[in-house]
Amino acid sequence: MKPLSLNDAQACVLQRAAPLGTKEMDLLQSLGRVLAQEVKSNRDHPPYDVSAMDGYAVRAGDLAAIPAQLKIVADIKAGELPAITLKAGQCARIMTGAKIPHGADTVLRVEDTEAVAPDIVQINVSVPVGRDIRRQGENLRSGAVTLEAGCEITPGVLGILAMVKCARVQVRRRPTVAILSSGDELEGLHDAFDPDKVPDANSYALMAQVQGLGIQPVLLGIANDDPVALKNKLAQGLKYDVLLVSGGTSVGVHDFVRPTLEALGVAMHFWRVQMRPGHPAAFGTTDTGMVFCLPGNPVASMVSFEQIVAPALRQMMGHGRLYRRTIQARLTQALKHRPGNLEFVRVTLSRDAQGYLATPTGSQSSGVLLSMARADGLLVVPNESAGLAAGESATIQLLDGTAWQGENDIEG
Amino acid sequence: MKPLSLNDAQACVLQRAAPLGTKEMDLLQSLGRVLAQEVKSNRDHPPYDVSAMDGYAVRAGDLAAIPAQLKIVADIKAGELPAITLKAGQCARIMTGAKIPHGADTVLRVEDTEAVAPDIVQINVSVPVGRDIRRQGENLRSGAVTLEAGCEITPGVLGILAMVKCARVQVRRRPTVAILSSGDELEGLHDAFDPDKVPDANSYALMAQVQGLGIQPVLLGIANDDPVALKNKLAQGLKYDVLLVSGGTSVGVHDFVRPTLEALGVAMHFWRVQMRPGHPAAFGTTDTGMVFCLPGNPVASMVSFEQIVAPALRQMMGHGRLYRRTIQARLTQALKHRPGNLEFVRVTLSRDAQGYLATPTGSQSSGVLLSMARADGLLVVPNESAGLAAGESATIQLLDGTAWQGENDIEG
Repeated sequence: MKPLSLNDAQACVLQRAAPLGTKEMDLLQSLGRVLAQEVKSNRDHPPYDVSAMDGYAVRAGDLAAIPAQLKIVADIKAGELPAITLKAGQCARIMTGAKIPHGADTVLRVEDTEAVAPDIVQINVSVPVGRDIRRQGENLRSGAVTLEAGCEITPGVLGILAMVKCARVQVRRRPTVAILSSGDELEGLHDAFDPDKVPDANSYALMAQVQGLGIQPVLLGIANDDPVALKNKLAQGLKYDVLLVSGGTSVGVHDFVRPTLEALGVAMHFWRVQMRPGHPAAFGTTDTGMVFCLPGNPVASMVSFEQIVAPALRQMMGHGRLYRRTIQARLTQALKHRPGNLEFVRVTLSRDAQGYLATPTGSQSSGVLLSMARADGLLVVPNESAGLAAGESATIQLLDGTAWQGENDIEG
Repeated sequence: MKPLSLNDAQACVLQRAAPLGTKEMDLLQSLGRVLAQEVKSNRDHPPYDVSAMDGYAVRAGDLAAIPAQLKIVADIKAGELPAITLKAGQCARIMTGAKIPHGADTVLRVEDTEAVAPDIVQINVSVPVGRDIRRQGENLRSGAVTLEAGCEITPGVLGILAMVKCARVQVRRRPTVAILSSGDELEGLHDAFDPDKVPDANSYALMAQVQGLGIQPVLLGIANDDPVALKNKLAQGLKYDVLLVSGGTSVGVHDFVRPTLEALGVAMHFWRVQMRPGHPAAFGTTDTGMVFCLPGNPVASMVSFEQIVAPALRQMMGHGRLYRRTIQARLTQALKHRPGNLEFVRVTLSRDAQGYLATPTGSQSSGVLLSMARADGLLVVPNESAGLAAGESATIQLLDGTAWQGENDIEG
């Protein structure tokens, strides 16, 4: 099978990564989830006209001549329902968020007034009618759709859900994810130290990448190259929505993973992707789940995850923004590149007056996990590029956090 | 007390937000924590010279004439320790990650070879000596410092910790945070619906902002304006490392929060900040903790949190990157501004061929939480600006995720 371009590989995966079902959950645990219901406001907000400031509720007609002295006839706190009606020459002391009394049409800020006597205030500035009043329903209108299904529950959205008293929310389910490392050379985190073994880093780096998306994966451990043990582990992993297998995806004769997956009923859709690192990344599906075979090299495994697995997991969770946010940065040094593969170069970011600068993190060998640990982002070297010059601008996927975008602006 | 500039307010807070102590925890739960120990490698990685590819381990001297035919004398899998020594004219089939046998100095990729007979392979290309061999200790050198204290545990760092078999890690403690809303007008999430009340959104939006930093805060609920109840709630909140109080920070006569905090031994450092929204943001300390009084308006509360509280919490957790990552974007429409306050305008981001575009989210009233829910970022209008023209470039703090930077590039 010919290696797919990254865009084709992503399309192949996303086509098969349908959003999962929904569940109801407590609002307090819902940050980062995707809303699966339309939410309407259950009241006007504010519930009545309120003061936007601490100051005095007045009748604008009384302020024809400035300064004007008004008699304070009430003292209105937020939460009170004032019974009075202001008459000519009267005002009410009022707090931010408190209900505007009948007769008043404008609020004067306390800093624009002067105390003259305990019950007399002098107004020193003229303001437009209606100033510093927040109108009933200005923020949310009772019965209006306030949040659409599909929106991510950010802190602001969570605040709105609390505002409409949605203590339980319908959200998209998150996929269950299992992680398996394969290879006779691997030593587990809790295994005794053996100088001739290679410690399993991939399971944990992948675990953390999955955790970063809000999913707690299950670690299935290490499968060695024993066919029966491998088959059992893979069968166990295929019970999850998504199985990630690292290592064992190469074309060598000792490669049992591919035939074992096929024997377990997995339809494989691709085995290679035209990118580096991450070339030997593979993808298959069963009736109920999907499996990604990721390269054994830790950096290649992490880069493949970002490009191919993360968008699929995000789509399954209902997100519309599937791709790492990108920025433009200028290279601080030239980069060599042989046309033929899209390449992701680990870079750190810095700045000057013109904007962002990108500097490769040193060795780009896909075994050097430290380069991934130090990276702020992945610089994209296009497929057909014959290299980038120092000072040239390039696209960088941000890795320092979890900023996402809707556009897949990496072509290749 | 004069309002502080935002930079002065941030400096005032950060000066008092020392990194907290350390604790040991399981590697599997450590994503996002800050490492509090230096980590050395406990072995060379790779442990010996290994093949970077699936292919054939050869002696470069045998490839003087191409094509060359070599006899396959071994078949080496990853994890095996080959006992053979290659002689002239011999090669070994080798897997990615497998140990290079004695005598071999170069690896030929399987795609550059051709099977001639079961034990004869033909090499079709010439490659430099040492090609496709990853050297012992190339990734990590035994005994070398691999990770410094203070580094954030990203997926890549977590992978390295697994690689050096650090199953338990020393990390910085996270602050304990309590959240209190104040105001007689507020209705709790689980209170019966009262059309004349205002639902408490701030507690939940703040909770989510704190959760977004990796901290699970404690919600203390709503304090009404009863002085004794307020004092009890505040005293309870001051037992935490950080107390966030929203509402009740205005200059009105019903404002009990300030005197009550002072009566409880809190030294207040500022009460106003020259920014909008978020002007009435206050900060105080006790011997053991700190308290932030945030505006009652939900947007103002959230913006103050981002600018003043989040950097402090990040510093207490040991992070070096305290500020939201910023990008430049051009405005799609003009923005009015009165000089005197730094202003944060909620914007959505889009793109064209020249880069990012920023569009205000509609009403910028600080009561309109929907504008915060829809925002991808906060556009910074400098203090002294007399307005920005359509097409003008501005600094945007990214809010769509959790990307952080070390530079505080907002002046004001």
